[in-house]
Amino acid sequence: MTWDDATWILTSSFIIFTMQSGFGLLESGAVSHKNEVNIMVKNTMDVLFGGITYWLFGYGISFGEAPGSNPFMGVGYWAVDVPDAEMGVVYSSYIFQLSFATTATTIVSGAMAERTRLTAYILFSFLNTIVYSFPAHWIWGRNGFLNTLGAIDIAGSGVVHLCGAVTGLVAAILLKPRSGRYDDGPNELPLGNPTNAIVGMFMLWWGWLGFNCGSTFGISGGKWKLAAKSAATTINASIGGGIAAVIFSYIKNKRKYGVSDLVNGILGSLVSITASCAVVRPWEALVIGALGGVITIATVSLMDRIKIDDPVSTFAIHGSAAVWGLLAVGLFVEIDYLEDMTKGHAGLFKGGGMYLLGVQSLAVICIIVWSAALSVLMLYAIHKTIGLRMTPEEEMLGADLVEHNIGNWNDPVVFMRSISARPSFPSATRRSAVFPLPPEVSVVSLASALEREPKRDNDPREQAAITSK
Amino acid sequence: MTWDDATWILTSSFIIFTMQSGFGLLESGAVSHKNEVNIMVKNTMDVLFGGITYWLFGYGISFGEAPGSNPFMGVGYWAVDVPDAEMGVVYSSYIFQLSFATTATTIVSGAMAERTRLTAYILFSFLNTIVYSFPAHWIWGRNGFLNTLGAIDIAGSGVVHLCGAVTGLVAAILLKPRSGRYDDGPNELPLGNPTNAIVGMFMLWWGWLGFNCGSTFGISGGKWKLAAKSAATTINASIGGGIAAVIFSYIKNKRKYGVSDLVNGILGSLVSITASCAVVRPWEALVIGALGGVITIATVSLMDRIKIDDPVSTFAIHGSAAVWGLLAVGLFVEIDYLEDMTKGHAGLFKGGGMYLLGVQSLAVICIIVWSAALSVLMLYAIHKTIGLRMTPEEEMLGADLVEHNIGNWNDPVVFMRSISARPSFPSATRRSAVFPLPPEVSVVSLASALEREPKRDNDPREQAAITSK
Amino acid sequence: MTWDDATWILTSSFIIFTMQSGFGLLESGAVSHKNEVNIMVKNTMDVLFGGITYWLFGYGISFGEAPGSNPFMGVGYWAVDVPDAEMGVVYSSYIFQLSFATTATTIVSGAMAERTRLTAYILFSFLNTIVYSFPAHWIWGRNGFLNTLGAIDIAGSGVVHLCGAVTGLVAAILLKPRSGRYDDGPNELPLGNPTNAIVGMFMLWWGWLGFNCGSTFGISGGKWKLAAKSAATTINASIGGGIAAVIFSYIKNKRKYGVSDLVNGILGSLVSITASCAVVRPWEALVIGALGGVITIATVSLMDRIKIDDPVSTFAIHGSAAVWGLLAVGLFVEIDYLEDMTKGHAGLFKGGGMYLLGVQSLAVICIIVWSAALSVLMLYAIHKTIGLRMTPEEEMLGADLVEHNIGNWNDPVVFMRSISARPSFPSATRRSAVFPLPPEVSVVSLASALEREPKRDNDPREQAAITSK
Repeated sequence: MTWDDATWILTSSFIIFTMQSGFGLLESGAVSHKNEVNIMVKNTMDVLFGGITYWLFGYGISFGEAPGSNPFMGVGYWAVDVPDAEMGVVYSSYIFQLSFATTATTIVSGAMAERTRLTAYILFSFLNTIVYSFPAHWIWGRNGFLNTLGAIDIAGSGVVHLCGAVTGLVAAILLKPRSGRYDDGPNELPLGNPTNAIVGMFMLWWGWLGFNCGSTFGISGGKWKLAAKSAATTINASIGGGIAAVIFSYIKNKRKYGVSDLVNGILGSLVSITASCAVVRPWEALVIGALGGVITIATVSLMDRIKIDDPVSTFAIHGSAAVWGLLAVGLFVEIDYLEDMTKGHAGLFKGGGMYLLGVQSLAVICIIVWSAALSVLMLYAIHKTIGLRMTPEEEMLGADLVEHNIGNWNDPVVFMRSISARPSFPSATRRSAVFPLPPEVSVVSLASALEREPKRDNDPREQAAITSK
Repeated sequence: MTWDDATWILTSSFIIFTMQSGFGLLESGAVSHKNEVNIMVKNTMDVLFGGITYWLFGYGISFGEAPGSNPFMGVGYWAVDVPDAEMGVVYSSYIFQLSFATTATTIVSGAMAERTRLTAYILFSFLNTIVYSFPAHWIWGRNGFLNTLGAIDIAGSGVVHLCGAVTGLVAAILLKPRSGRYDDGPNELPLGNPTNAIVGMFMLWWGWLGFNCGSTFGISGGKWKLAAKSAATTINASIGGGIAAVIFSYIKNKRKYGVSDLVNGILGSLVSITASCAVVRPWEALVIGALGGVITIATVSLMDRIKIDDPVSTFAIHGSAAVWGLLAVGLFVEIDYLEDMTKGHAGLFKGGGMYLLGVQSLAVICIIVWSAALSVLMLYAIHKTIGLRMTPEEEMLGADLVEHNIGNWNDPVVFMRSISARPSFPSATRRSAVFPLPPEVSVVSLASALEREPKRDNDPREQAAITSK
Repeated sequence: MTWDDATWILTSSFIIFTMQSGFGLLESGAVSHKNEVNIMVKNTMDVLFGGITYWLFGYGISFGEAPGSNPFMGVGYWAVDVPDAEMGVVYSSYIFQLSFATTATTIVSGAMAERTRLTAYILFSFLNTIVYSFPAHWIWGRNGFLNTLGAIDIAGSGVVHLCGAVTGLVAAILLKPRSGRYDDGPNELPLGNPTNAIVGMFMLWWGWLGFNCGSTFGISGGKWKLAAKSAATTINASIGGGIAAVIFSYIKNKRKYGVSDLVNGILGSLVSITASCAVVRPWEALVIGALGGVITIATVSLMDRIKIDDPVSTFAIHGSAAVWGLLAVGLFVEIDYLEDMTKGHAGLFKGGGMYLLGVQSLAVICIIVWSAALSVLMLYAIHKTIGLRMTPEEEMLGADLVEHNIGNWNDPVVFMRSISARPSFPSATRRSAVFPLPPEVSVVSLASALEREPKRDNDPREQAAITSK
């Protein structure tokens, strides 16, 4: 590795970290006003508690090559600290991989929004980064078993996005929907702050260029050519996904342009090109992105129809689009003669036969099974110990007030608005300004929810909420 | 081109793309609340539909060098896709130029704000990128006729900004002012969200460093020196423009500091240094920027006095400051011996005589005539087919509600505020909390504007609005 | 210097400038609504008026090496403008140092928020950049006396942060608290817009990577290794500070997670690692950051207890954490054999004895004494001439309305809210929706505060406000 390579990796990392700001604004803009600060705090916790785990264990599990390292997990680099001779290579790699790891955990926060206790989330964030580190080893580690088989996931459609999305899906199912979410049917809820959501999308969009182009892991040799190609395919995919989303949304919404559809379509297309960015052609990127966008929007509707409440469409964007992206590798890629990023294999449409498609399918299955199994274990353990879900009163008051003391008790207009779910659509089915109080919640219990902090953990309501909904 | 050059170009492109976030926030902060989401969606559409056009045709028209390429237009690179040997150079150039092209189209969105139908805008965005690609060829293409004559426009004061601004001016004139805009005279309207507008300005400011410094198109040889100089002149110009704006505004506004003036002055100064950034001295940049800032603010007042309604001062910032910037090249530049960016000519003040000033004036005229003529054609065609302007009811309700279903019908305070034009200034002439309803708008017609989506296209009101205002 | 080095410096500068957006959003989100635009304008003024000073005098004072240059101040580079042979090195250095200088001044704006006249602030901003330039020479100038002694402050814990913070502290003391600030005791005030504050923190966080990693001043030789290490230590320090803040806040706030604590802890930890980023180990960074975070939060409480009103915790974040950061150098650093960034010395824990700790302490003292003395002079001169503090009426109405004509006189709900201090906490002691009017303010005097602009400067109230509070 030369200093030119290191500079590219570091600069890309700095750009990738700005995606945390993007995720924060996107999620904050998507949820209701009473939770918009809390979700940004969650994203901060991901960097803090996910970061400490990654430094202590994660980087070593993914990229350690000390004795004992094997196809399933790496060994070494615990609490990353290396002598001067190695520090250029290891620290630039560490910081780059850390930016990926914290992204993977942040993805999950969206699916858990508006009903998860912050203390539980912090513990989850600490543990989840370890879960992420294993698939990173399988595909990116020198001796990872999927790597050896030839699996290709250049910037992490599978390792980062699918891993986070599956965990999010498990969490959304375990947590159950927000109170009253489906009382009026599966209609999409409005965004709490659409302007912030779009700014967040913009930040993610441009940050994604660092994500995908940085994954050539340098610029020396032929790498700069692959990085340039990655930029072109990444933007082209988003153009494909965005245009598909606009058309799809215009038809679905009776000639209105849904903002959520636009955002979901663009982000889904970016997820789907992430696996193959450096090794497909620009027109193929357009096709992969367009399909990725449509798959994402369709998954959003499907999830609401089966009443899995995923407030910022985590699984649709980062899950189903990622599966498509990993399989698209098995269809579209041609052999890369510059840097051998395709490990000698070509996709089905390029004369490579079924082998690569098979390996990619295996990668999909391994990631899904691993993430799902570990997530169930982790989340169930947290639920049984410190408790995962807020009480109905806490949910009604909102996490901003309950967790952070943010709110205004003295201005009745502001207060009533802040405890209403969110501004309603002008639709016949959602004319009520506030969600009706659930039967077990009274004004008295609401007020006491703010006072009884010291005994909060032992509250039987919290247990009831999660098991009875 | 080396990989060092390619890295510089790519990194600059990534920074330039963040200007889309900046434009979005600036425009969103400048318009009234009822349109703040719609304008950000417009900016997204520019990347999507402008991007697909640029990939298909635009890059080829600007930079194609296949047989048939001539001083008026390039030929080749349709649907950009090149073999491995060329991909480093072509894709990094493509992504850099794409970031410029989408910027040029985004500039126009401000002039059309608050009264343009989104479907019409999408079609416009698709077409307008082609209009942009021709002047880019004339000045930046190897055999472009203005290039051959020696015209200098380093980062696109003319190609990007003037081109976009003239189109914006044509659109503002054709669209006519927003309903009731000049009922109380030509006074400036307050910004809908000044905080967002300033954040947007900040993002544009720092993004401009990528814009201007990336335009050395590499760092090898003497290019890194010119890039460093560009950074210094760019910042110095903005300092000049900002300080001029502060002084000008303080006097004009009777010892208050107008936020719009500050934003417009800084952005105008950045536009004016864009043509000459690498080949003027820092103190000259200060002068060019200061004049650019003053010209911008003066143009804003002039436009309102002649009742051309340009909601975010597009023409003032990107048009008149750009003309000044292009002419300043003919005055200030000295011969560049490092990379020959001045093509052997010097400006009037550096002993080069009138030649360069003449060529720069010719460039100004060519760009204005071309952009104006094509814009009239395009916009008139759109007006006559699918219709350009919203109906009075739609305008009253706001594009956020009408185009995107964003709004709150259940909260009367929020609703009445959202359909009022915007928060009023504390001035004697603007004490009404909402604009009065125009005579042809009734509460009944307002309500029906939300229900009648299916027959919207044939509505005679839309035709009437644009022809009778 | 090679072009690779220049690129690194320029790219870092571009990233550092984005910190201005971060500071703007953080401060704007921290103050009350009626001042949220004004504080962003102040940050803009820092770039404009701080920038012009730095170009004219500052860069020369810090880095001039012409005859006459001495250990106390540099001489040369006035109104920076160099011939072609030097321009690559000087302009890239200039733009990098300018990004640091404007940051130092911006730091002060927070301490002066909500009660300083903008005209006074502009004059202050112009002068303050000169104050900053001297310590920069002492520590970073080739013949600076602290540099010669071996003081280490890699990215400016002392030069940038402590310098700004001490000036801020002096200003906060001279200005006195905001009207009514401590009427209900020293409790923390809520953030005006916590979402914006967190977005601002995010932007600062990622921008800090450019700040610290760019301070290797290149990538050639062993510099890229130190840059990579700096990225790792910077992020690790913030993880340490953030986690410490979360734990501290959770205990202090009776099991709620304070947003201010989180923001202050992370930013304080970043300040504390800035002095030593390239020459400590990742685990040491974690410790330095954790202590930096705790010191910051403790200082915030202390300041309010002694009734020094520093609205965005400037001194706590940039001052006390910076002192810790400078002293930590004297404890933790080991000799750097790659680029001699430690000037041959090691810290106390690495066998270097007390020498380095002594030099670092001397640096702390020199910076504090210099900044404090010059600040008192400057601010007192401004106070006695054009006046520093707003009148009570102006403060009540808010700087957005008084300085920028932003506000809404026609909507009584909005208006009453905008002149109330800020949304109150649900605490027993702060139930009033608005601060009570101070006795000397009447509705008549409030109204006249908006009309009497022409005679504002001679108003005896302004003098009274600052001397009698």
